[in-house]
Amino acid sequence: MSAPLRLGIAGLGTVGVGLIKIIRQHGEMLTARTGRKIEISAVSARSRDKDRGVPLDGYAWEDDPVVLATRDDVDVFVELMGGSDGPAKAATEAALAAGKDVVTANKAMLAVNGQALAEQAEAAGRVIRFEAAVAGGIPVIKSLTEGLAGNEITRVMGVMNGTCNYILTRMESAGLPYEAVFDEADKLGYLEADPNLDVGGIDAGHKLAILASIAFGTQVDFDAVELEGIGSITIEDIRQAADMGYKIKLLGVAQMTGRGLEQRMSPCLVPDSSPLGQLDGGTNMVVLEGDSVGQIVLRGAGAGEGPTASAVMGDILDLARGFRMPVFGQPAASLRKARAARAAVPAPYYLRLQLQDKPGALAKVARVLGEAGVSIDRMRQYGHQDTAAPVLIVTHKTTRAALEEALEGFRSTGVVEGEPVAIRIEAV
Amino acid sequence: MSAPLRLGIAGLGTVGVGLIKIIRQHGEMLTARTGRKIEISAVSARSRDKDRGVPLDGYAWEDDPVVLATRDDVDVFVELMGGSDGPAKAATEAALAAGKDVVTANKAMLAVNGQALAEQAEAAGRVIRFEAAVAGGIPVIKSLTEGLAGNEITRVMGVMNGTCNYILTRMESAGLPYEAVFDEADKLGYLEADPNLDVGGIDAGHKLAILASIAFGTQVDFDAVELEGIGSITIEDIRQAADMGYKIKLLGVAQMTGRGLEQRMSPCLVPDSSPLGQLDGGTNMVVLEGDSVGQIVLRGAGAGEGPTASAVMGDILDLARGFRMPVFGQPAASLRKARAARAAVPAPYYLRLQLQDKPGALAKVARVLGEAGVSIDRMRQYGHQDTAAPVLIVTHKTTRAALEEALEGFRSTGVVEGEPVAIRIEAV
Repeated sequence: MSAPLRLGIAGLGTVGVGLIKIIRQHGEMLTARTGRKIEISAVSARSRDKDRGVPLDGYAWEDDPVVLATRDDVDVFVELMGGSDGPAKAATEAALAAGKDVVTANKAMLAVNGQALAEQAEAAGRVIRFEAAVAGGIPVIKSLTEGLAGNEITRVMGVMNGTCNYILTRMESAGLPYEAVFDEADKLGYLEADPNLDVGGIDAGHKLAILASIAFGTQVDFDAVELEGIGSITIEDIRQAADMGYKIKLLGVAQMTGRGLEQRMSPCLVPDSSPLGQLDGGTNMVVLEGDSVGQIVLRGAGAGEGPTASAVMGDILDLARGFRMPVFGQPAASLRKARAARAAVPAPYYLRLQLQDKPGALAKVARVLGEAGVSIDRMRQYGHQDTAAPVLIVTHKTTRAALEEALEGFRSTGVVEGEPVAIRIEAV
Repeated sequence: MSAPLRLGIAGLGTVGVGLIKIIRQHGEMLTARTGRKIEISAVSARSRDKDRGVPLDGYAWEDDPVVLATRDDVDVFVELMGGSDGPAKAATEAALAAGKDVVTANKAMLAVNGQALAEQAEAAGRVIRFEAAVAGGIPVIKSLTEGLAGNEITRVMGVMNGTCNYILTRMESAGLPYEAVFDEADKLGYLEADPNLDVGGIDAGHKLAILASIAFGTQVDFDAVELEGIGSITIEDIRQAADMGYKIKLLGVAQMTGRGLEQRMSPCLVPDSSPLGQLDGGTNMVVLEGDSVGQIVLRGAGAGEGPTASAVMGDILDLARGFRMPVFGQPAASLRKARAARAAVPAPYYLRLQLQDKPGALAKVARVLGEAGVSIDRMRQYGHQDTAAPVLIVTHKTTRAALEEALEGFRSTGVVEGEPVAIRIEAV
């Protein structure tokens, strides 16, 4: 049997604890599968005294993750602290410089600093693996970079923030407004300390940027992700969408177009009979499309102790088996800097307007759409007691530019109150 | 750059041709991803003259796949001929003996001869990879043996024969009887030359046996798979199931129980709101359950030129990257011979009986069920003009033994006509 693979684990939150549990419970199984013992040499976390429900006395303790990362008895540095910079990045860089491989669950670090870290790792002949950074327990990084490596990837989509999907499906099932469900989610502990990471789409956007890089062979570029959160979605939108056969999801889409790489993380309408439309609650789903394989759909828990630790463990076992490849699936030096194509791919849109109850109001709106070149597929106007009535419009496929011209035009009609809502309908 | 990886491809049907197309079209991309050129040295098939739509003149031709498999300029023997024994097995054995790695799409060969081939491969320090053998383009072997390698797998399920799923969903959508849809499928070329491989569940059973081996660390044992085809499913069963919120699927289930390994490939009822229930047409779905990861669902095309070639290509690229592991995920010598547990896991069942129109008939049936210890969850009896009426029963969870006692008991009542239908309801 080969020498043991020795880990240094930094960060003992739910994922770190879950990882330790797997290693303690399944040592024999892991060795049978890899031919090596998986050992923990040392651990590090903010508080040494906290009771985490697993014994730590067999492992050396380091207060400083940088010191942990460079210990002689560590082969693989397991980074589970989080944060795009700070101690996570410092310890990762130190580990690579000291000749260690790195396994991380840190989407923010990779989305923001992935290219530089990959270059450092490859210069040092080391690897960084990060299955747990995207969609928790779903083996999506492995599927894209290995299983589908014979494909030119044409599109990657995903519902990758369980909290947002919980909020949207709960609004529909309980008939509650966004604010009420947001408060519920907060009380349940579903939200990040900064909730905008969830509901603003930032967390999911980090994941999308990583997927786009490995799918299209481009340098990870989180700043190029068009971000739109779920805060403006009303229960009315969800009901109207449902009535027309759609669900509203915070959907990430990355696609290479003639004008460059489009990366969007925004609320979208998807058919309620599609796998994405049927995804309720906190579950994640990633859709991978390749020129040979067609469409592959992967579904599973996107967060939580067990699922995330499972993904970290899978990476560690790959290293134990000697599987080594460039960080983003091909050498960092060969990754192209993609031009960011914003709103390159046309789509139909769902529009919701508050229309004043005046003669000719609807005609004015229709004329603005026509002048912008946006044609109407379906329209509904509702009875009302107020001075303004909701009007719902589904357009035919249109460019975002034409749509924005129309949205701009609505203002000058004098009959549209407030801000119109426009939600893309994604063909899935 | 490392030396090229040189292939010898035996079998130039749709998959072989699809593989050649990928290599010809995407040479540069494949090299960027693996650091090596992927080359075809030689090919072999039954007919040399057939026009396959791809040029073959750059490759050496061998009439005999065994000769192809042992050529000096072949590093990886790609077996795409099919058949559990015969030329496929002979050439695979020859390749291993000559020090070649093997990539195959051949589920029958692995299900029947997998253990012996794995032992031979590992004794020779070679690997056999077979992603394409199970569920076409879906990276399920990789997900199980690598991505989820940190999990104790608790259950594996799958709809893995697209033809059967097409037939069952088409019966429902078109309201046609089994025989009519079978003929349609035959005319569309969906059926194997021996249709029983499809509708008898044999093809899907081969796939299940392979999955069970890698999931549970056991020697592949196709003979232990309980097989039941879809031939006895009527449009009436499908309609009644739908009415009660279920779909009928040819579902494979492998599960380790206290009494041994249970492997079943049989029609089952699954909730129509579940991912399996929502799987229409020829698509495949595999559900993997692990103690840490929970439930992972994978969906995609289970057959066809592109998807199957994509899976074969993924295996080849793994070899180009130097990823090497035991055939069934752990050394063949360490795979246990599992005891076959038939019908170990209790479940509710759907029963359909033709009941004679006699006073007390239903009471007799109910008494038989009660005496066998099978309790009734729901029952429906329908109006009728004939001398016998269909009665539908959904039982509470029961053992298969108790159920069979009841089915046997129905005969002696003298009021049940023909053979009762019993379909398991699987909790998914």
